[in-house]
Amino acid sequence: MAVTPQDLFGLDNLPYGVFSTPGSPGGPDTPGAPGDPTRRRIGVRYGDHVLDAGAAARALGSPHTPLLQAPSLGPLLAAGRPVWQSVRAALRDWLGNPAHRETVSPLLLPLHPAAESPAPVFHLPFEVADYVDFYASEHHAANVGRMFRPDGEPLTPNWKHLPIGYHGRAGTVVVSGTPVVRPSGQRRPPGADAPDFGPSRRLDIEAEVGFVVGAPSTPGEPVPRSAFRDHVFGVALLNDWSARDIQAWEYVPLGPFLGKSFATSLSPWITPLEALEHAAVAPPPRSHPLLPYLDDTGPGAEPQGYDLRLSVHLNGELISEPPFSSMYWTAAQQLAHLTANGASLRTGDLFASGTVSGPEPGERGSLLELTWSGTEPLRLPAGAGGERTFLADGDEVTLSAWAPGPGGSRIGLGEVTGRIEPTRGAPPAAAPDGGGA
Amino acid sequence: MAVTPQDLFGLDNLPYGVFSTPGSPGGPDTPGAPGDPTRRRIGVRYGDHVLDAGAAARALGSPHTPLLQAPSLGPLLAAGRPVWQSVRAALRDWLGNPAHRETVSPLLLPLHPAAESPAPVFHLPFEVADYVDFYASEHHAANVGRMFRPDGEPLTPNWKHLPIGYHGRAGTVVVSGTPVVRPSGQRRPPGADAPDFGPSRRLDIEAEVGFVVGAPSTPGEPVPRSAFRDHVFGVALLNDWSARDIQAWEYVPLGPFLGKSFATSLSPWITPLEALEHAAVAPPPRSHPLLPYLDDTGPGAEPQGYDLRLSVHLNGELISEPPFSSMYWTAAQQLAHLTANGASLRTGDLFASGTVSGPEPGERGSLLELTWSGTEPLRLPAGAGGERTFLADGDEVTLSAWAPGPGGSRIGLGEVTGRIEPTRGAPPAAAPDGGGA
Repeated sequence: MAVTPQDLFGLDNLPYGVFSTPGSPGGPDTPGAPGDPTRRRIGVRYGDHVLDAGAAARALGSPHTPLLQAPSLGPLLAAGRPVWQSVRAALRDWLGNPAHRETVSPLLLPLHPAAESPAPVFHLPFEVADYVDFYASEHHAANVGRMFRPDGEPLTPNWKHLPIGYHGRAGTVVVSGTPVVRPSGQRRPPGADAPDFGPSRRLDIEAEVGFVVGAPSTPGEPVPRSAFRDHVFGVALLNDWSARDIQAWEYVPLGPFLGKSFATSLSPWITPLEALEHAAVAPPPRSHPLLPYLDDTGPGAEPQGYDLRLSVHLNGELISEPPFSSMYWTAAQQLAHLTANGASLRTGDLFASGTVSGPEPGERGSLLELTWSGTEPLRLPAGAGGERTFLADGDEVTLSAWAPGPGGSRIGLGEVTGRIEPTRGAPPAAAPDGGGA
Repeated sequence: MAVTPQDLFGLDNLPYGVFSTPGSPGGPDTPGAPGDPTRRRIGVRYGDHVLDAGAAARALGSPHTPLLQAPSLGPLLAAGRPVWQSVRAALRDWLGNPAHRETVSPLLLPLHPAAESPAPVFHLPFEVADYVDFYASEHHAANVGRMFRPDGEPLTPNWKHLPIGYHGRAGTVVVSGTPVVRPSGQRRPPGADAPDFGPSRRLDIEAEVGFVVGAPSTPGEPVPRSAFRDHVFGVALLNDWSARDIQAWEYVPLGPFLGKSFATSLSPWITPLEALEHAAVAPPPRSHPLLPYLDDTGPGAEPQGYDLRLSVHLNGELISEPPFSSMYWTAAQQLAHLTANGASLRTGDLFASGTVSGPEPGERGSLLELTWSGTEPLRLPAGAGGERTFLADGDEVTLSAWAPGPGGSRIGLGEVTGRIEPTRGAPPAAAPDGGGA
């Protein structure tokens, strides 16, 4: 077990997840029958292993044992920033101090064990309370505006004044690896007066970064930007699957609904904000003056952007490298906006950045943009599916990312992946739709 | 204790809620210290009393005791329709059969006891999973369209083809009686280029009917209209408070967000669908053909509308009587649409009808419509506040409703009420805004 600082998941990272080992009979931490929720345990990723954090806490007599023996990250999230810091310091000691090696080593389970051993299975690491999706990339918003409203300004008049967002469906946030069933819905064919119904022909991805709220807030009391790290526990990659044909027909005037609500995939690994200290960057220059609750341009303002370098793979082929540092609105601004009207936060609230798209064509975080609404297909190797506009059944999309760590190291964000399954009860071949169809 | 069939809350109604009696020391069903969640109990309304349902179940040796001793309606909601029917039959027996009178009478607590006794306090009766708000009144949608988009068609092209809806904030659904703090937010003054920030000047109500999902559904599998009563447990009045100035500036292109998310008030009483059997009516004629999953016009189609007669009181004065029977889209259609893309239902999902507005001016369910965007103020008696466009601090709004019951009786829906409190930390007097401001 040798993890060097160069590893993406070394001592400076230590993301949290929830796992079980369903195939493992009778180990000391696998009580109960399969399906028993008490089998779920908090894990901390260290290199290619996962530490059974509750077992380690118990073995080492930690006061954090109850929090870390929970079957969900919920209690840890709710505990607040001082506890987050204390637990993180303890984990760094348990994993980094040679004095604990004998105790800790047996509690490090390989993520990819030899064939005869059961691999850990990862679960949604907390119960999602409310899910909000923002729209914070100027490049993405302008690209979409050009495609959806070709006769108007690319950005709506409010875009530079507030981080636009909307509520999504919390109940269909699923953990990475959960199959994504192609949604059916109403689409209006070009030129038609009335819609038809069927499997989406323009199924897309949105490469996003999700922020996980830990500490709740008081109803009626806004959370200022400066309190961001008191409330937000960490980040996780997120794929906001989108059916563009369904969305285009339904979204006026109340916003996206069924075009998004079928599934949102979340990484099993929540990276604590503390692991991203070296990734803090200033956001892009603000072209419009901001109202005080959003203004982050003053002298001495703490940089609240994050330098996360995303990668999007489709069937194993790299198709985009979206830079999170290019996002116009920061997560701290999004949190301040989300609560500006007094709306309260709950433990487990999840808010996502919106599609991460940079200024360059190879930095776009959706197929809508990468193929310019299907008119410029991607050309993948035949083994990766050949030409693609939108997603075909069987396609697999994986998002990954890293951020600068201390001393030139890299902090990895846990991947989020998903494979498209055919609509249930419908003909299997739903051909993706090009722009001319 | 004499409840006649003419009562709004007789044996044919029996709505469910969750209550506690915080001021009552040491009764057999008030264990624990104040604030102890185990003090919360399921209550069933009978006339002007609430039955401690768990205590009654235990006293009468009912197999439903565990479900009815829960501190929330959650387990009962999750149990499914056959159990709902069985529990309801038991409650009708317990309350209606003279043989049980001696056992049951002490477990009936007055809703409005004499001054020295503690009154029951009502809580949000279940944990809201996802909250969805629809837009199902043609009259409301057309009125809003005429005001917000005066140069276009009143209805968007999709309106007659699908029940438009969006996700709202589940974490700020509050029980009736919870004060509503006036939200602040960005508003763009007429003619200005940039927004300002402050307490909403156009704070409004939306009189709605909420539907509570009990039985969950399978991810990827739509729920047909015919399965509506297998999944939906009951209904409750709901006030979707809306800040029109915030909403108007923010809602393009992703829909309402902070204009709605500060608070949504729900009645403490969930009326089971079975109590509304005599209120079933056919919805209005469909002007456009519907896709099969929404089409409810075939021969022998079960009528899935509900004849609920709503009343809106502002500071005690009746200001509107919206007829729910005029809603274009039924709740069964909304459920079928909500799941058409495979999105799954969870126990505790709540979906609301959208503002209930009938064809007549006195039937409109929002101040936006009742005052035509503030240009035609309501004239209330001086004791009720005088002239009103939008809500002033201190205003109290109460929604109530009844439905036809068996034999000419009436089924009451529990009220939902809320009073406006001033924005915290802001000047107390936020003058409502007329249309010309």
